[in-house]
Amino acid sequence: MSSTDLAATWAGARAIDLWVVLGDPVELVAAVEDGAAVQLVSEPTSFAIFAAMRDADVDDVRRVGIASLHPSGLEAGKRAGVQAVVAVADDPSAIPALLAAEPDAVVKQSEFDSLYALRYGSRRPFRPQVLLNPGPALTSARVKRAAAGIDLCHREPEFTLLERQVISKLRRVAGVGDHWSVVLMSGSGTGAAEAALRAAVRPGRRALVVDNGVYGSRLLAIAQRSGIEAVVCASGWTEPADPERVHELLASDPEIDVVAMVHHETTTGLLNPVEEVAALARAADVRTVVDGISSFGAEELTLEDSGIDFLVCSSNKCLQGLPGAAFVLVSPTGLERTGQVPASSVYLDLAGYLRGTASGSPPFTPAIPALTALDAALDELLTRGSAEHRRRYAERAAVLDDVLEALGLEPIVAAEHRSRTVRAIPLPAGIEYVQLHDALKRDGYVIYAGQGQLSEEIFRVCCMGALEPDTLRTFGERLAAAFDRQPATA
Amino acid sequence: MSSTDLAATWAGARAIDLWVVLGDPVELVAAVEDGAAVQLVSEPTSFAIFAAMRDADVDDVRRVGIASLHPSGLEAGKRAGVQAVVAVADDPSAIPALLAAEPDAVVKQSEFDSLYALRYGSRRPFRPQVLLNPGPALTSARVKRAAAGIDLCHREPEFTLLERQVISKLRRVAGVGDHWSVVLMSGSGTGAAEAALRAAVRPGRRALVVDNGVYGSRLLAIAQRSGIEAVVCASGWTEPADPERVHELLASDPEIDVVAMVHHETTTGLLNPVEEVAALARAADVRTVVDGISSFGAEELTLEDSGIDFLVCSSNKCLQGLPGAAFVLVSPTGLERTGQVPASSVYLDLAGYLRGTASGSPPFTPAIPALTALDAALDELLTRGSAEHRRRYAERAAVLDDVLEALGLEPIVAAEHRSRTVRAIPLPAGIEYVQLHDALKRDGYVIYAGQGQLSEEIFRVCCMGALEPDTLRTFGERLAAAFDRQPATA
Repeated sequence: MSSTDLAATWAGARAIDLWVVLGDPVELVAAVEDGAAVQLVSEPTSFAIFAAMRDADVDDVRRVGIASLHPSGLEAGKRAGVQAVVAVADDPSAIPALLAAEPDAVVKQSEFDSLYALRYGSRRPFRPQVLLNPGPALTSARVKRAAAGIDLCHREPEFTLLERQVISKLRRVAGVGDHWSVVLMSGSGTGAAEAALRAAVRPGRRALVVDNGVYGSRLLAIAQRSGIEAVVCASGWTEPADPERVHELLASDPEIDVVAMVHHETTTGLLNPVEEVAALARAADVRTVVDGISSFGAEELTLEDSGIDFLVCSSNKCLQGLPGAAFVLVSPTGLERTGQVPASSVYLDLAGYLRGTASGSPPFTPAIPALTALDAALDELLTRGSAEHRRRYAERAAVLDDVLEALGLEPIVAAEHRSRTVRAIPLPAGIEYVQLHDALKRDGYVIYAGQGQLSEEIFRVCCMGALEPDTLRTFGERLAAAFDRQPATA
Repeated sequence: MSSTDLAATWAGARAIDLWVVLGDPVELVAAVEDGAAVQLVSEPTSFAIFAAMRDADVDDVRRVGIASLHPSGLEAGKRAGVQAVVAVADDPSAIPALLAAEPDAVVKQSEFDSLYALRYGSRRPFRPQVLLNPGPALTSARVKRAAAGIDLCHREPEFTLLERQVISKLRRVAGVGDHWSVVLMSGSGTGAAEAALRAAVRPGRRALVVDNGVYGSRLLAIAQRSGIEAVVCASGWTEPADPERVHELLASDPEIDVVAMVHHETTTGLLNPVEEVAALARAADVRTVVDGISSFGAEELTLEDSGIDFLVCSSNKCLQGLPGAAFVLVSPTGLERTGQVPASSVYLDLAGYLRGTASGSPPFTPAIPALTALDAALDELLTRGSAEHRRRYAERAAVLDDVLEALGLEPIVAAEHRSRTVRAIPLPAGIEYVQLHDALKRDGYVIYAGQGQLSEEIFRVCCMGALEPDTLRTFGERLAAAFDRQPATA
């Protein structure tokens, strides 16, 4: 389903249009009151479910649920591939056999209505919405299906194959050759950023941290808490880092071992000139750590021979995978550096991960479902083509800028420094964030608040993930309605 | 499907019994050669797919795949809920529309056979097997389905609801009240262990680390790399920690602030007397950190008023969730301690997570699919009952011990100190691990190697996860065959 259909159809609609009761009767009062059809079927087979679908004029098993008192009914539901498989048991002795059939829930008859309200009803909390927050972003059905793959052991060759596939595809997206190393980690991008910074600075040396947003400040906190002395190159949150100032600081302090900076400051939607800074750092024989968590895959970035030695990324933003995996792309000079820095953490020890990948034995249990989902997301991206993927991000950003301009809204970052994914927009006079957020959420759109010093002043709209340009246009209409005024162009 | 059926039926069998080609013909040579049925259907509807299933006598959509040149065919496959949705495109201009239908793969006609071999064929690397490694363990279909839920934003109330549900269920499994805090983290259990240890020791104080296996040594490495001075209480890998020695060390060193120990040493299958040690620590006003990663849910453990202040666990072992989430249960005195220790990491800052949970705003993007899967796994466990879940683990361990005894195999840990999940077994004379592993894997069973000093001497068999006792009995037969001898009882 396209993101536009998602907004139009799914937000607020019930999850299941047809409930098939297999075997003995079950009362599904909440489903009936919510407008779902119910059919009683005696024969516990998939074909009987398909016949009930035909009778009810429902042609999509993703809109069908089954309820049954019997394991045979649950098994039939699974064979039919229905979306919801609910076991009903008032007799505790029936529970073990029902659980063995692996239904989505086992409830007493009296509990069905509350289960329905939580999971399946038109007002259920967990209903799909158009995510316009800066990750986790919308993902395709394919990516989600890939997370529900087989159970794997991470010491087996099939895991090594998965890992190699993902690493090879990440190199293709990054446009780098096999001489770049790739570290896959479980956790959020911040964990990978901490691992990279800890691995990059030799004892007694310093990190120069570029700080012009919440994530630059986070890099600074990582350095400080990791016992790395930091020199800060701070600037305003809407101004890109100034390479000239970085150059001066590098020239004045020979103890600086690393420059650490954020490519895309999600705080404001600001792009920093990381290639320019990395080239200066390389000229000074200084390594560069770049937080590319919210830019990788969407923005243009040349890594080969750029001076960037550690690029930190995550699975759930512009690559359109699920959250849970993060990774670091490491240049040959970066790899050399990791051999010169003693480990200051067990879990965030980049060198340990590099040794593990080289030996086919990851140091800790990986988040395998996040990796299988990432593998599927990378397949989608590469089937389309990396350049086309980036072009689509640029196209969507242009649509979003048009939508905002039509409403007289001017992002706080100047057009030439804006990313392709995040817009930080001043809240119009008289509009409070919470009311705006809630109004849009009722329409199926999730926007995002400002952070830090901007939390009262702005709202953010992001276009990461499996989103269509048309969805942003429809969102613009809802935003206009939320402001209770028409687009300026109307 | 039960784990026994899994071993008997799935290992080595093809994933798809029926391929339905929707619309124009597609050549599926590899599928035909592998024995799968193929039906050509002109009408791109779910009901046409169901009719083809009836013709082919296949009643389970999980054994059906579709292949199509057309988006309409892919959509029909998704409406029918089939297991595999493959788009075939020789013309690059067709790709965008095919990708929009979110198939599991887009390939050229000439690439189908290699895709088939990788994903769907009877010799595919990613085929289900019975995992007898110490996690990731087998999980139910329900748990895997739960990972493929909707995309959520972690700053929204529905995420807070998910988090609260998981925390409440974890407290129920742990048998503790609301006065215990629960920290949910993304990553492996080791990350959570490092966060707990970093949060537990005040500056200038020491940790007493009990070390009688690889995971005890890992706690020691965490202390050392985190800059925490450690006193070691080491013992042999098959001997439980001696509370008397811990008592002496506590009495002789008033600077000891924390005792850190592993409940279940996965290295050998050894249980440590954590309750006894924690009671001694509490009497000395010393906090206790317990690595319960491979014991939580399976072994008996009383937390309330036990002296245990930090219990570290993960989602993918005895709780039978997917890998990717870890958590720490924190007692009130443990919580107090976290307020007295300055943070020495950003990502592994337990106090930061505690503040985040309290304010409804997790500090970093959580691994949401791992949490939705954990929530489903906890529902399964609690529907059955915590005590019954533990009893089943005890029952299975007894079956495994019987199986091993019948083969004349004696685990290296004495019966009274064995866990309910792991057996470390000396390799019989003349048997090499790799050959044994590979022979069993051909039969669909994944065993595990020894670690560290034991890597050449033992093999491990573990019974975590969604396993039936019968599966262990069948495994025993295959193990006997692999040894090329009959069980001693035969």
